[in-house]
Amino acid sequence: MRVLSGIQPTGRPHWGNYFGAIAQYIALQNNEQSFYFVADLHALTTIRDAQVLRDNSHSAAVDLLALGLDPQQATLFLQSDIPEVSELTWLLMTVTQMSLLEKCHAYKDKKAKGLAADAGLFNYPVLMAADILLYDSDVVPVGADQVQHIEVTRDIAQRFNVIYGTEALTLPNGQTLDATAKVPGTDGEKMSKSYGNTIEVFEAPKKMRKKVMSIKTDSKTVEEPKDPETCPVFALYKLFAEEAQQAELAGRYRAGGMGYGDAKQAVYEAALAYFAEARERRAELEKTPDTVRDILRDGAIVARAKGQEVLERVRSACGLSAHQ
Amino acid sequence: MRVLSGIQPTGRPHWGNYFGAIAQYIALQNNEQSFYFVADLHALTTIRDAQVLRDNSHSAAVDLLALGLDPQQATLFLQSDIPEVSELTWLLMTVTQMSLLEKCHAYKDKKAKGLAADAGLFNYPVLMAADILLYDSDVVPVGADQVQHIEVTRDIAQRFNVIYGTEALTLPNGQTLDATAKVPGTDGEKMSKSYGNTIEVFEAPKKMRKKVMSIKTDSKTVEEPKDPETCPVFALYKLFAEEAQQAELAGRYRAGGMGYGDAKQAVYEAALAYFAEARERRAELEKTPDTVRDILRDGAIVARAKGQEVLERVRSACGLSAHQ
Repeated sequence: MRVLSGIQPTGRPHWGNYFGAIAQYIALQNNEQSFYFVADLHALTTIRDAQVLRDNSHSAAVDLLALGLDPQQATLFLQSDIPEVSELTWLLMTVTQMSLLEKCHAYKDKKAKGLAADAGLFNYPVLMAADILLYDSDVVPVGADQVQHIEVTRDIAQRFNVIYGTEALTLPNGQTLDATAKVPGTDGEKMSKSYGNTIEVFEAPKKMRKKVMSIKTDSKTVEEPKDPETCPVFALYKLFAEEAQQAELAGRYRAGGMGYGDAKQAVYEAALAYFAEARERRAELEKTPDTVRDILRDGAIVARAKGQEVLERVRSACGLSAHQ
Repeated sequence: MRVLSGIQPTGRPHWGNYFGAIAQYIALQNNEQSFYFVADLHALTTIRDAQVLRDNSHSAAVDLLALGLDPQQATLFLQSDIPEVSELTWLLMTVTQMSLLEKCHAYKDKKAKGLAADAGLFNYPVLMAADILLYDSDVVPVGADQVQHIEVTRDIAQRFNVIYGTEALTLPNGQTLDATAKVPGTDGEKMSKSYGNTIEVFEAPKKMRKKVMSIKTDSKTVEEPKDPETCPVFALYKLFAEEAQQAELAGRYRAGGMGYGDAKQAVYEAALAYFAEARERRAELEKTPDTVRDILRDGAIVARAKGQEVLERVRSACGLSAHQ
């Protein structure tokens, strides 16, 4: 079974990204085969600054490695290092119905807002289909907002197979990420970049503490007993602390006599401890950019070998000759 | 100066194709550099049969070689042998405005007829732009119906250069093909596949003669004097015969006493003689498919070397790393 995950190089990951997606992706690396790519070709639809794209792409790879992605277990590569994915994109476009793309969220939303869209935004579901189909991916873990793309991918693959009377393309299955872990932001709402309420995984400790201390709580006095289950501070603590520690803090909430400042300090300390190893690894990797580049280059070699095999199957099915 | 021409592998060329385009393309091979490619990736938007595409692509290359394209002078290759053109297509898409593509004829016409369009048809102006821009093409000879594509290509290139503050892409110039030579079909209308009035360049002689004999003329008797300048048979004769021969036949038209059958026989013989050498070369090439494949492979090597140079310029401008 091959698992595929694409990571957008859109900036530094925050706690919401980590628990909602990254940690779950990385947990899949023990599958028979797992491919992880930094989606820099997709990022071009929004990032129009070469240096920003370069920095973000490198940084996204470093983040994954720091957070536990093991290049001995999994294959990590840059999307743009695989020419075959662009080749497959065009081949898929020739069998993709316009009506399918017109229905896709990102384009529809932008159009509904009266904004001018580029062809990259309109066509990116086809690139995404190529990302998935190029490696015979069986399982693609996705957030709830991305389930549509798996459907689109299956539609395109099926249409290609039917038109050419072939089974060249493997239909993937989506695997919806677990969204039960609540990750509130500093305002108590769901942590999200668009709300400006995020705390980054690799935030400098002092800044991180300041953000944690700013989390909105109710106005109960120190003396009053408090409900841990409705408190965003406690929700965050649950992510980082062992069960015994959680029970202990919950007891202090219910007993009264503890201010939210103490709970926030506990979150700050627990988060620091939780990411300590990752932070160390990250610092190490930042000192050795060549190591990261070597990992990405080796990953691209593995991914290309698989991609070439699938692309040749597709080319042959539609009457193109094998690459020399 | 680099000249670029793409030839659609849509079937056997007819006299209209030859005088209206092919002969003019081939005449450009004496430029400093001239690139000719068989547009098999474009053909995928209409041909959905692997064997037909393979046959047509090979045949299109053979036709060009038979008709005088000299691989010592010019570079001939298959579009699909150049992965870089697909890579550039995606990069260009990210800067191509949807409104630009919505204006393009082929898609607009199909949509106006209420037909379902595929993304390939919608996006093919971007692939065409990549075809041109990938080789720093200076001049692209096109039919009047294709001038729009040169404009689109210039628009996309300019937008890329402006967005990334670069001059990575060279703006091409169109060169409209000479459409003064009239090539009437068997019904007297412009020769065109869509009118079903064509005579193929490499038609079997017997079938060719039959078609020539079926050309519609007016109902003047043998005795009556005839006007060569309004006669489709004479228009065709002009394409194949020397000036002295033209003057002689025109004299017989004006003198009366000559039936259209004689003029048609003259066209048949002149056409046979005109394409005799090409026909021979074609028969030779059909016996040696490996020669054709070698020419295409060698051409792809030359084209890729240039294409890689331009693609790396573009990749670097938008923040992607160089291919290893």
